[in-house]
Amino acid sequence: MEAKSRYNVAIVGATGAVGQKMIEMLEMVEFPIEELRPLASKRSVGKLIQYSGRNITIQEATPEAFEGIDIALFSAGGSISKQLANEAVERGAVVVDNTSAFRMNDEVPLVVPEVNREALRNHKGIIANPNCSTIQMVGALEPVRQKYGLNRVIVSTYQSVSGSGLDAVEELKDQSQAMLDGTTVNTEIMPVKSEPKHYPIAFNALPQIDTFEDNHYTFEEMKMINETKKIMEAPELSVAATCVRLPFFYSHAESVYIEIDDDQVTVPQMQGTIKEGQGVVLEDDIMNQGYPTPLSAEGKLEIFVGRVRKDLDVQNGFHLWVVSDNLLKGAAWNSVQIAQTLIEMTTEQ
Amino acid sequence: MEAKSRYNVAIVGATGAVGQKMIEMLEMVEFPIEELRPLASKRSVGKLIQYSGRNITIQEATPEAFEGIDIALFSAGGSISKQLANEAVERGAVVVDNTSAFRMNDEVPLVVPEVNREALRNHKGIIANPNCSTIQMVGALEPVRQKYGLNRVIVSTYQSVSGSGLDAVEELKDQSQAMLDGTTVNTEIMPVKSEPKHYPIAFNALPQIDTFEDNHYTFEEMKMINETKKIMEAPELSVAATCVRLPFFYSHAESVYIEIDDDQVTVPQMQGTIKEGQGVVLEDDIMNQGYPTPLSAEGKLEIFVGRVRKDLDVQNGFHLWVVSDNLLKGAAWNSVQIAQTLIEMTTEQ
Repeated sequence: MEAKSRYNVAIVGATGAVGQKMIEMLEMVEFPIEELRPLASKRSVGKLIQYSGRNITIQEATPEAFEGIDIALFSAGGSISKQLANEAVERGAVVVDNTSAFRMNDEVPLVVPEVNREALRNHKGIIANPNCSTIQMVGALEPVRQKYGLNRVIVSTYQSVSGSGLDAVEELKDQSQAMLDGTTVNTEIMPVKSEPKHYPIAFNALPQIDTFEDNHYTFEEMKMINETKKIMEAPELSVAATCVRLPFFYSHAESVYIEIDDDQVTVPQMQGTIKEGQGVVLEDDIMNQGYPTPLSAEGKLEIFVGRVRKDLDVQNGFHLWVVSDNLLKGAAWNSVQIAQTLIEMTTEQ
Repeated sequence: MEAKSRYNVAIVGATGAVGQKMIEMLEMVEFPIEELRPLASKRSVGKLIQYSGRNITIQEATPEAFEGIDIALFSAGGSISKQLANEAVERGAVVVDNTSAFRMNDEVPLVVPEVNREALRNHKGIIANPNCSTIQMVGALEPVRQKYGLNRVIVSTYQSVSGSGLDAVEELKDQSQAMLDGTTVNTEIMPVKSEPKHYPIAFNALPQIDTFEDNHYTFEEMKMINETKKIMEAPELSVAATCVRLPFFYSHAESVYIEIDDDQVTVPQMQGTIKEGQGVVLEDDIMNQGYPTPLSAEGKLEIFVGRVRKDLDVQNGFHLWVVSDNLLKGAAWNSVQIAQTLIEMTTEQ
């Protein structure tokens, strides 16, 4: 990417849950934008979005729509990224893709800037933004890995419906009201819109996020496992995941068990190390019932960590509770951070 | 306990979430009752409960109220059990106590009939019913332990509000409606009524169940750890727990990681072993999106297990998803099963 004073930025999927947050984040950091070009499917063409007090008309996401674009943030589903990301690159854009389309591609850096910023230098036009539940976990664990080594991770997630998009947010609202009223509960979206069966998510828990793989894990679980190893450049790291969808709107929480290399670490030392992590906030004051929750993390950019405990049997084992806003650090904010870092690197060169 | 054809049964805490279910369960199994005596605090004296089509008046739970009682089922909080359980025993009753008051007492059997029925033979008047989240986990794991050995358990729970009583159920309803309406959300009960701080549970997740211990674990987490070892008679078993309260009304779910002694076990073998477990139902048909959820387990007596997976790195490691109705197998049903087993044993002798 060429160094410029202002950039032409496209948002692909501008009307979606993440796309909207991307625009908010760009505005918040006063991203050096020459032209903001919101792109979406035909259905949304002509709609207006607000940016810096101006109305901007949504255009159709076609190959030609990327002419003149410097940076394209994609969040419109894996199939759109597969269709259009290379078209954008061919027209000179750098793509930051928030879908799973290219994440495990060896030629595509998978980046959480606080963890593996340097991986960005090797991009060939496309950079992948990791899965939401992966980002907050690796962000919390990176300071621990750096200081004590890390050899094992077992995570059980508590994930909000907004990870499935705005339809899922509406479904949770509608189902909740119907259950409170004792009227008919419609199930059309959760756990996975394209799957044959749908179950209520209101006042329930669904141990399925994304489709099942042959090995009995869901694709979401495999994303957490594979992406964590790639981002941390630790193929030998043992990672296990169980991913569960829950009836709240925003933020994901994670119960994370880790084993580190050092078996002499105390809880205060572990807390201190987490606290020093970039973009990480330690919120662990049990004397005053202090710990993060999905509601407390909503709308914030950081990764919050609480409930730090030493395993009672395994000397090098620790338990953590990690919470972050899945649409922000888990998606839009991490994508914008990647774009900011790319610009910084362009200026450095 | 003397063998009789019909027994005088007291329910202490007859108006509570568990007490009501105890009465339902006694009725369902046509328990051989001569007299049912519902007891509660002064506040509820004179209220009527229904049993087998008759109205029965609630009496005050005093020492004298246990005169003539053969079996007393307690579920009115630990302090009431500490005050009155021995009074009941002195008057000739066998107490099945559903609080934490006596669970870790060496002289008190802690019983899940499918797991350690024989422990009942050594009771000295009081038998403890384990914690709800413990019961469903040991019930699911016992067939596995018997067949393959068990040396490690790491559990993250997904627990419903009814574990905190009927007040908490009402609070979740009220808060959910307030959040949907955008009006003021009152927080008075969750996570722990007696603690200084309260947080919304509606559309949220609270990583605190019961109060914190000096070792940074909550009392609920320590219950799961200590009770599991006692019930399974496995002091050397490594158990770790993270307990989380969630916005659903009934049933607890658990993401359970285990390590067994045998490292040659396949997923179909593990599924087969779980399926053979007494009181356990395997619900694990991922090809058809088949797995248990809190809503699907509500009102049922069994422990449901799904999402059986082999760990991808640890040969003897497996992941399971365990769900059961916390008020039934987790409390009232297990207590009634204990009472039934006591009667069976009386008849055997």
